[in-house]
Amino acid sequence: MADSGSTRAKLIRAKDAAGALARLSTARKNELLLSIAEAIEANHEDILRHNRSDLEASGLVGALQDRLLLNPERIANMVAGVRAVAELPDPVYETLAEWTRPNGMRIRKIRVPLGVVGVIYESRPNVTVDAATLALKTGNAVVLRGGKEAGCSNQCLARIMTSVAGVPEGAIELLDSSTRDTVKELMQARGLVDVLIPRGGADLISYVTANSAVPVIETGAGNCHVFVDQSADFEMADRIVINAKTQRPSVCNAAEKLLVHESIAKDYLPRIASQLLEKGVEVRGDGQVLQFTSGLALSPVTTSDLTEEYLRLCMSIYVVGGVDEAIAHINRYSTRHSDAIVTRDEANAQKFLRYVDSAAVYWNASTRFSDGAEFGFGAEMGISTQKLHCRGPFALAELTSTKYEVFGSGQVRE
Amino acid sequence: MADSGSTRAKLIRAKDAAGALARLSTARKNELLLSIAEAIEANHEDILRHNRSDLEASGLVGALQDRLLLNPERIANMVAGVRAVAELPDPVYETLAEWTRPNGMRIRKIRVPLGVVGVIYESRPNVTVDAATLALKTGNAVVLRGGKEAGCSNQCLARIMTSVAGVPEGAIELLDSSTRDTVKELMQARGLVDVLIPRGGADLISYVTANSAVPVIETGAGNCHVFVDQSADFEMADRIVINAKTQRPSVCNAAEKLLVHESIAKDYLPRIASQLLEKGVEVRGDGQVLQFTSGLALSPVTTSDLTEEYLRLCMSIYVVGGVDEAIAHINRYSTRHSDAIVTRDEANAQKFLRYVDSAAVYWNASTRFSDGAEFGFGAEMGISTQKLHCRGPFALAELTSTKYEVFGSGQVRE
Repeated sequence: MADSGSTRAKLIRAKDAAGALARLSTARKNELLLSIAEAIEANHEDILRHNRSDLEASGLVGALQDRLLLNPERIANMVAGVRAVAELPDPVYETLAEWTRPNGMRIRKIRVPLGVVGVIYESRPNVTVDAATLALKTGNAVVLRGGKEAGCSNQCLARIMTSVAGVPEGAIELLDSSTRDTVKELMQARGLVDVLIPRGGADLISYVTANSAVPVIETGAGNCHVFVDQSADFEMADRIVINAKTQRPSVCNAAEKLLVHESIAKDYLPRIASQLLEKGVEVRGDGQVLQFTSGLALSPVTTSDLTEEYLRLCMSIYVVGGVDEAIAHINRYSTRHSDAIVTRDEANAQKFLRYVDSAAVYWNASTRFSDGAEFGFGAEMGISTQKLHCRGPFALAELTSTKYEVFGSGQVRE
Repeated sequence: MADSGSTRAKLIRAKDAAGALARLSTARKNELLLSIAEAIEANHEDILRHNRSDLEASGLVGALQDRLLLNPERIANMVAGVRAVAELPDPVYETLAEWTRPNGMRIRKIRVPLGVVGVIYESRPNVTVDAATLALKTGNAVVLRGGKEAGCSNQCLARIMTSVAGVPEGAIELLDSSTRDTVKELMQARGLVDVLIPRGGADLISYVTANSAVPVIETGAGNCHVFVDQSADFEMADRIVINAKTQRPSVCNAAEKLLVHESIAKDYLPRIASQLLEKGVEVRGDGQVLQFTSGLALSPVTTSDLTEEYLRLCMSIYVVGGVDEAIAHINRYSTRHSDAIVTRDEANAQKFLRYVDSAAVYWNASTRFSDGAEFGFGAEMGISTQKLHCRGPFALAELTSTKYEVFGSGQVRE
């Protein structure tokens, strides 16, 4: 007999729960979500107390501490998020296609829950609630493996959610975050876990994608580019580059690289470089960039700049010969996340949109819009940078699989 | 410099070709497909000669030899298959959804090629042509790693296809089948290969899914069930069970297990068991089955029968208490491929269709219909038994990914 607190016992409970969750009606799932929202509200002091323990034990400061921190406003946002998920349409059992074959068989393709969704994440405790409620809405069981620093907060949040009357046993399972073994067990749980979603830094994501035997949805590593074309409106380009780089530099859809068309390099480079420097951005440039910005405090790029995701106020600038070179550069060095062109030339824009091989490609808009809420999905599980299953911001529909229901009247194959 | 015949050189050529293939128009791709069909026809004697070398060297006999064999009829089928793919609609750049956000940004979700598709397969040389033409139609480069026994046939077919004028260099790359190293290199080619599709026996498929760092579409392992419910029309049940078991026992959608409702066990078991035995099927049964079929030559089931895919004329029979037990049994032991219920009870049928967690679930029809052509897809790359990306028979649309094209007018994020 497995210990009921062992990872394996939790995974088996989750798999059993998946069967029960698939049978819940939309109305019932929404009731449970609203009860969860109420329970979080009612227990907010308990949550804050556990979060304080985490904060004290972590010894973190600054941005890292901020990621771990919960406060009344953040709890209110969490609760509002749960209620928003309850309001969203339920994709489960939606008919995607239906047709009849010449032999009279009717085939219906419908959405079904994935089953058991595993989520491996780092310090932000709100992921515990986001992931659990998105999974519940889509009839999936969820197995959560949060960050060690957020251990107390996550345990408290999971206990509150699983204590809500009617939530099936095993629907939300939290694994021990004090040992790396639980990550390994989750990655090896083929047959018990249907998909694994790593959310966090590039190291975590590449570790999971390289080592998981369970299918993975790879999320979030970004090395986003903005290409300012020959015909760009300079004011629009300024606005987009500054926004994409500085509005929230720590996230995956922030721009890290700027490509500038050679024919405007002389005019545009000093202009944008000084604006970036004014905003406190460390600016690096290739040979031509340095030549056109002499007198400004730029440093030269090195090879690693081509692929590095800075996640801070740093930007590298390259001069390119035109839209084709920009596309080739991006397809070679980007993480296929989000890239933008600023141009007045529709033909160049269409070429860029079509042939830049990234999840989201922008014409005259900031890369910062790559986000479930900004796309109008009402929620977000992550941003997929892989090509299978789903790509770009993803939410409820992407937490489902499909199946074929076939209605016959005795048909056999000749 | 990598040797131009090395796996790595081939993968890099394929990745480069993917960029060129994504830019081909539908008309151009169809022209190339028709030229490939012509070239295969024109070179059929060469193909047969190379296939004879493979047959002689292999020393295979019987069914295994038959899988490797090409003859004029099979080549004609291959050619007809290529022409059929040329006739199918092109999914690439199809708009799947389009909407405008309150800030005026227009978002369009379109289908795009996956990029580089790897296929690892066993002895049937027609897969070389099927996979290459489905990939070409969808603007993907393909890297093929066929079976050692079919080495000469596959080289000849690949040479014919890549020699067609206009097929981009690298669009169809064939890896060395004489060493297992090429399988390993393909599985490790994350970043160069976008998806890996293993086609063949259960051992190959589980080896690839367990060891690949490249995302996999798992295909084809089957352990299909037919459940004959209390209210089943016995004649219909006979027809479906016999067809699902005996029409082509070596394939993944053949039925391996029969579940019978306990209330009809006494009447139905002797009837179906004798028919199966007459058809040359080895029949195994649980305790109750043996009791109701005494006098017939059945043998007892063992634990391994629950999960074994026989791929031959063998069937195990179990008595179950009703539709719920049938669903639970199937969800526990099946490979989630194809399962059927024979019943006149619509409520039981709906329950079975919805809650049997398999790619295709049948009411009053044979599991043998799980097939791209039978579903009306016009072609087939395989039958997916995983839940991510695609499930069940899959063809052209499933060889694409998606992307978001976003049309702005200077929007930045607040």
